Amino acid sequence: MPEKVEKYLPVCVSLGPGDPELVTLKALRTLQKVEIIYCPATQSDGKTLSRAKDILDEIGIDTQKIRIFLVPMSKDRTLAEKVYSDIASEIAECYQTGRSVAFVAEGDSGFYSSVHYISDKLEEMDIAVQHIAGVPAFIACGALAGIHVVKQDERLSVFPSGTSAEEIMMEVEAGKSVVLMKLSQQKDTIKKAVEILSEAQFHYFENVGIAQKEFYTNNRNEIIQRLFPYFSLLIVKKD
Amino acid sequence: MPEKVEKYLPVCVSLGPGDPELVTLKALRTLQKVEIIYCPATQSDGKTLSRAKDILDEIGIDTQKIRIFLVPMSKDRTLAEKVYSDIASEIAECYQTGRSVAFVAEGDSGFYSSVHYISDKLEEMDIAVQHIAGVPAFIACGALAGIHVVKQDERLSVFPSGTSAEEIMMEVEAGKSVVLMKLSQQKDTIKKAVEILSEAQFHYFENVGIAQKEFYTNNRNEIIQRLFPYFSLLIVKKD
Repeated sequence: MPEKVEKYLPVCVSLGPGDPELVTLKALRTLQKVEIIYCPATQSDGKTLSRAKDILDEIGIDTQKIRIFLVPMSKDRTLAEKVYSDIASEIAECYQTGRSVAFVAEGDSGFYSSVHYISDKLEEMDIAVQHIAGVPAFIACGALAGIHVVKQDERLSVFPSGTSAEEIMMEVEAGKSVVLMKLSQQKDTIKKAVEILSEAQFHYFENVGIAQKEFYTNNRNEIIQRLFPYFSLLIVKKD
Repeated sequence: MPEKVEKYLPVCVSLGPGDPELVTLKALRTLQKVEIIYCPATQSDGKTLSRAKDILDEIGIDTQKIRIFLVPMSKDRTLAEKVYSDIASEIAECYQTGRSVAFVAEGDSGFYSSVHYISDKLEEMDIAVQHIAGVPAFIACGALAGIHVVKQDERLSVFPSGTSAEEIMMEVEAGKSVVLMKLSQQKDTIKKAVEILSEAQFHYFENVGIAQKEFYTNNRNEIIQRLFPYFSLLIVKKD
């Protein structure tokens, strides 16, 4: 009779927006405890970039147990999905053989994070996944600016892409707070909104949580002149 | 000449949804370091209730430095505003006399937290406040259910109150994820939405982050029978 293998459920650990100090106690404890950590990265100009790996390094996680996987950056999601499937299979094997394993996401894994697909694939294989919540980027942005993102009965709309200046205006005039993400994909829309929406406050952020790179302004002219890099975000509210 | 007093900026510390392990490293370190911590509580049937104080106890913060203040629970916000003003004055005095001080909020202080008003009052007195971001409740709910709250280009709408079943239906049919809060104030609306919106998933939560009290279901019949207590929340998505 084969020896019974003790099994550990895989854990999906959210790391927060970038500041290693915004990692939760639960995330840190889990990452210290597990044997293997799968960590996403991208490649650009031959360089491997991973904000998640940076956070793991900064909180002192043993590099030996970190397994980097590259996620293709493409509008066509087929390639990325293949990678997530492969990693899910590797994690499933860890689970079957009794090795404790985590996989990590920047921000929160359930909030616009593609790492969550690994979890979906594991669930399809009938392997339950534990999720550890993290601080999403827009919440860290609000804290940096010291603003109420939303208060009392205010409503919030989050638009990751594909909006128009007119739509942003309608939402703000209806009294909603609007979070705009993926600004690099909708530069013209954003600039037009900043121009036409005179009775709103615009809070613009870049690289929140990244030491030396963090930037915040609520000055319209400054916003219009920014380049809207990958990690940029806007919070718009009625004055 | 009077001796120069070294001054420490007040810190507004977000504690997360209730699970002491979802406190961030930065929050813990700050709370351990400061001399005084202002902590909100409410009174009900002669008992003082404070989820924030429970979290402080669970992460081992010295009770000696915690100063509880009672926030009146009333639709009329005048009484509560008076309390926040008084606490802001006390914090300002701490600042002037060189004592390091924090005040705490459940969830995230910029996300539907009235504790943020203390920060507003301090800013009016030209005292800058540092904010430490925390995990909001809806993010912890998504992690408990193991769902994508939002993914890819999906939009998110958060409604804290005053919505209608028809409005929820329109949002969900437009492909948005909807977070509904303060369910106790809109029981009939929610129950109607659960009945009429046949092509949606409903994820219902109570007391997420509170040991032994946490509850989650995505079963419609079960949801309709719940009492919608103060700490309840719904996430609605298209099937």
